[in-house]
Amino acid sequence: MPERSPLAPAGFPDLPPLAGVKLGAAAAAIRYSGRKDLFLAALEPGATVAGVFTRSLTASAPVLWCRRILPAGRCRAIIANSGNANAFTGDAGVRAVERSVGALASRLGCTPEEVMMASTGVIGEPLPDQKVVAALDGLCASLGADGWAEAAQAIMTTDTFPKGATRSTTIGGTPVTINGIAKGSGMIAPDMATMLAFVFTDAAVPAPILQQLLTAANERSFNCITVDSDTSTSDTLILCASGKASNAPPRAASDPALRGFRRALEDLLVDLAKQVVRDGEGARKFITINVTGAASVRAAKRIALAIANSPLVKTAVAGEDANWGRIVMAVGKAGEKADRDKLAIAIGGTRIAENGMRRPDYDEAPVAAHMRGQDIIIDVDVGVGRGRATVWTCDLTDGYIRINASYRS
Amino acid sequence: MPERSPLAPAGFPDLPPLAGVKLGAAAAAIRYSGRKDLFLAALEPGATVAGVFTRSLTASAPVLWCRRILPAGRCRAIIANSGNANAFTGDAGVRAVERSVGALASRLGCTPEEVMMASTGVIGEPLPDQKVVAALDGLCASLGADGWAEAAQAIMTTDTFPKGATRSTTIGGTPVTINGIAKGSGMIAPDMATMLAFVFTDAAVPAPILQQLLTAANERSFNCITVDSDTSTSDTLILCASGKASNAPPRAASDPALRGFRRALEDLLVDLAKQVVRDGEGARKFITINVTGAASVRAAKRIALAIANSPLVKTAVAGEDANWGRIVMAVGKAGEKADRDKLAIAIGGTRIAENGMRRPDYDEAPVAAHMRGQDIIIDVDVGVGRGRATVWTCDLTDGYIRINASYRS
Repeated sequence: MPERSPLAPAGFPDLPPLAGVKLGAAAAAIRYSGRKDLFLAALEPGATVAGVFTRSLTASAPVLWCRRILPAGRCRAIIANSGNANAFTGDAGVRAVERSVGALASRLGCTPEEVMMASTGVIGEPLPDQKVVAALDGLCASLGADGWAEAAQAIMTTDTFPKGATRSTTIGGTPVTINGIAKGSGMIAPDMATMLAFVFTDAAVPAPILQQLLTAANERSFNCITVDSDTSTSDTLILCASGKASNAPPRAASDPALRGFRRALEDLLVDLAKQVVRDGEGARKFITINVTGAASVRAAKRIALAIANSPLVKTAVAGEDANWGRIVMAVGKAGEKADRDKLAIAIGGTRIAENGMRRPDYDEAPVAAHMRGQDIIIDVDVGVGRGRATVWTCDLTDGYIRINASYRS
Repeated sequence: MPERSPLAPAGFPDLPPLAGVKLGAAAAAIRYSGRKDLFLAALEPGATVAGVFTRSLTASAPVLWCRRILPAGRCRAIIANSGNANAFTGDAGVRAVERSVGALASRLGCTPEEVMMASTGVIGEPLPDQKVVAALDGLCASLGADGWAEAAQAIMTTDTFPKGATRSTTIGGTPVTINGIAKGSGMIAPDMATMLAFVFTDAAVPAPILQQLLTAANERSFNCITVDSDTSTSDTLILCASGKASNAPPRAASDPALRGFRRALEDLLVDLAKQVVRDGEGARKFITINVTGAASVRAAKRIALAIANSPLVKTAVAGEDANWGRIVMAVGKAGEKADRDKLAIAIGGTRIAENGMRRPDYDEAPVAAHMRGQDIIIDVDVGVGRGRATVWTCDLTDGYIRINASYRS
């Protein structure tokens, strides 16, 4: 069991029960022994669903399944396993999904097309779905209104801590709650971050509106994080709304009644996304990169990601070295418009370079002190426009190498 | 002094003298002490020149200088320093180049516009050009027809061995020779690899033709290697032709008389490029990635580079783990057309996966044995067309982290 990330939060937050949502976990010994590796969420009839999935061209069998059933907008269950991604497994992988969701659907009294599935772990090995099916009775028996932490643990792979978050808000005066769990923690890059995240609310939101809200919030949360620039075959973010809060259903994503919900959802996804970064493989520093002055938001994000994905920037942070020249290099390679002679760079709030060169009076002492901390803040203004974006990442340490040189064997 | 890379060749090759080309090296203590850090090549009047430079938008002052003077196609000298990249140094950097090339030009009796300059090292610190100028007399006095190895040493930064190559061929029956030296060894990615390379020939080739030959050969050599996906602000490849071999000058790049020269030039650049990879920071394995069956050559190269730049693929190789699932992941994220259900993968010549899944009879033993070697070969067929490309890279080890977390401080 790897050591808990030094960037981990103090503990798992208190997630309240959500009307219409039950959780379960079980040990199916798919790859890991001595721990739970199956997650189940069961929803009462009437729940709506939205989802965002990896853009990988070699997406896993469960991702293809979810994409196929998503348009109906209905969800009675999500089942997820850790230890095997069921990716690059051909027809056998497709059948493994069908058998798993079929067996679960018959136990829950719904159709297979109302069951989402997600898998995370090794690529290319057949999923032993008979182990999944054999564990279903125990899994269903474990269903309860609590157990969020246990659920978050069941989907972990190389994660060193379970990730959860909760937010409360109102829709048209009716209190609603959002709970979410997620796992990382390598192969994390847009689009999306490599991860599974399951988010639930008791709000009543029609599926098409739910999808718009989720897509927008994902763009400003999970699509703003990166650990190592690699993109998983299995990225899955699912949002289910049980509707039990009985708020007046919104009529459009832009409905003013949704203002609080939109903000709470984005805030919760950012919270989960940052937790994923804080558990980046080998991470010892959390890095926030703010890019301003770009030609557009999209350009700002691309520049910020070029910095966030640069192994040289990430190793410099790991070495607590204020090597801002590598930030210049990363801006230069991003391929987006930047005015070299207006470029300004600050670390930890200390302005290092402006107008395309180091400040004559630059004093490295406060920057060096900042670099020794756990939270590193890099501000870059590229001097051409008003586009801005923030991206979160972690440093690149020998711990990353150690974990990934031995993950499978 | 870092340990010599385990992938280094046995020794520096024997580079013969080239008529019309003299070399020198000197210690200017720009950053390093106790070693030579200035390189000079002097050419007799009449030499032609071609060059390829970084595409970084934050290119260094010497790169901007070379780009400006290149169109004239004449070159009497190349001066290069290690230890300071003279990048992101504003007007001061431009003036440092002008003073350096001006002082050298007056000593050599040519115009400043006939002097190329290249710098490699830390970004963002002013180049102490007075140190360069103070060393010029000694540098000019050191000029001789030999000393290729010493020249290659003078341009090293984190390189662990000097890099050189030579090829002989004929143009229209006249023997000609090509010599080249290069340095790496981090921040290596197209376009181009991060490096300086200076190549010389005694052939007579008009500048516009020389440029076409160099651009084409670069595309199949330095633009096919990557160490860490980072792009330097200083990448410079210069090819000078002294013309002293007195071959009949070719009339076009496609002149049949140039067939041998074209092949020899590409072969030499590939040799140097591979040496750069073999000295990749922390490298312990040399990786060849062959992609076939892509929609185009360009698509094949993009897929090959996605594999070559994947930290997860590179760490798996470092760990001698035949984790071919990560190759599937990298193909998926490349964004180029691939048929998941026709994808085939081999490592070390052993077919692991075909038709989109692992072979039923796959035996990992021979692959595991191959992974323990120093030269790793990965073949991927993406099953959609006839485009093919080969890319070279190295593994990602804790040595890379160690070197880059402490390079500057």
